[in-house]
Amino acid sequence: MKKVNLAKAFASIQETWSPRIAAQVNDVHVKLAKLEGEFVRHTHQNEDELFYVLSGVLTMAFDDGDVTVGPGEFIMVPRGVAHKPVAPELVEVLLIEPATTVNTGDAGGERTRKAEWL
Amino acid sequence: MKKVNLAKAFASIQETWSPRIAAQVNDVHVKLAKLEGEFVRHTHQNEDELFYVLSGVLTMAFDDGDVTVGPGEFIMVPRGVAHKPVAPELVEVLLIEPATTVNTGDAGGERTRKAEWL
Repeated sequence: MKKVNLAKAFASIQETWSPRIAAQVNDVHVKLAKLEGEFVRHTHQNEDELFYVLSGVLTMAFDDGDVTVGPGEFIMVPRGVAHKPVAPELVEVLLIEPATTVNTGDAGGERTRKAEWL
Repeated sequence: MKKVNLAKAFASIQETWSPRIAAQVNDVHVKLAKLEGEFVRHTHQNEDELFYVLSGVLTMAFDDGDVTVGPGEFIMVPRGVAHKPVAPELVEVLLIEPATTVNTGDAGGERTRKAEWL
């Protein structure tokens, strides 16, 4: 039975906005991602998505306003809710979401990444 | 859309070994728990269970040896694997597990708790 050290795992991640799978819990993936800059506004029709911030400050932009999430805080974005993550500076985040989740949701496009295992 | 601050959430938890639900992501619960002392050895037949340690040091005792998990580390216990969590001193842990998970698994007994929302 192996444990995962998150600092070591993050050190192996180069590309931003490209979540990597750190664990699977039944049908859900736990992913790690580095974020910097602005992502695309998108919606997951069938997947809830939790962003737990480990370092940096993440702004989650919703159509009716922004929520700022700092280290030690998380935000749960329910399925069907449009959101745009923005990271003015580098953010390290742990994501909890169904294995079917695509990073760009219904927006698709060139920033879509297939999540690979760490 | 509300964020959750983990330090504030933990401050509201009194009882040890009684996980509280902080979020639901599709069929999975994200729970927070304070652990201190030794728990019962048990198995979840259908549920994987991830322990992410936020503070303190958790020893996960398996039948073939122990794994020690410190702050910033997690261990994923696959369904069907017997385990006994031991916390020599207070541990704060974030759990990721299906909503159907019972804290004592197949062992049952007096330490069973129904997880309540925070």
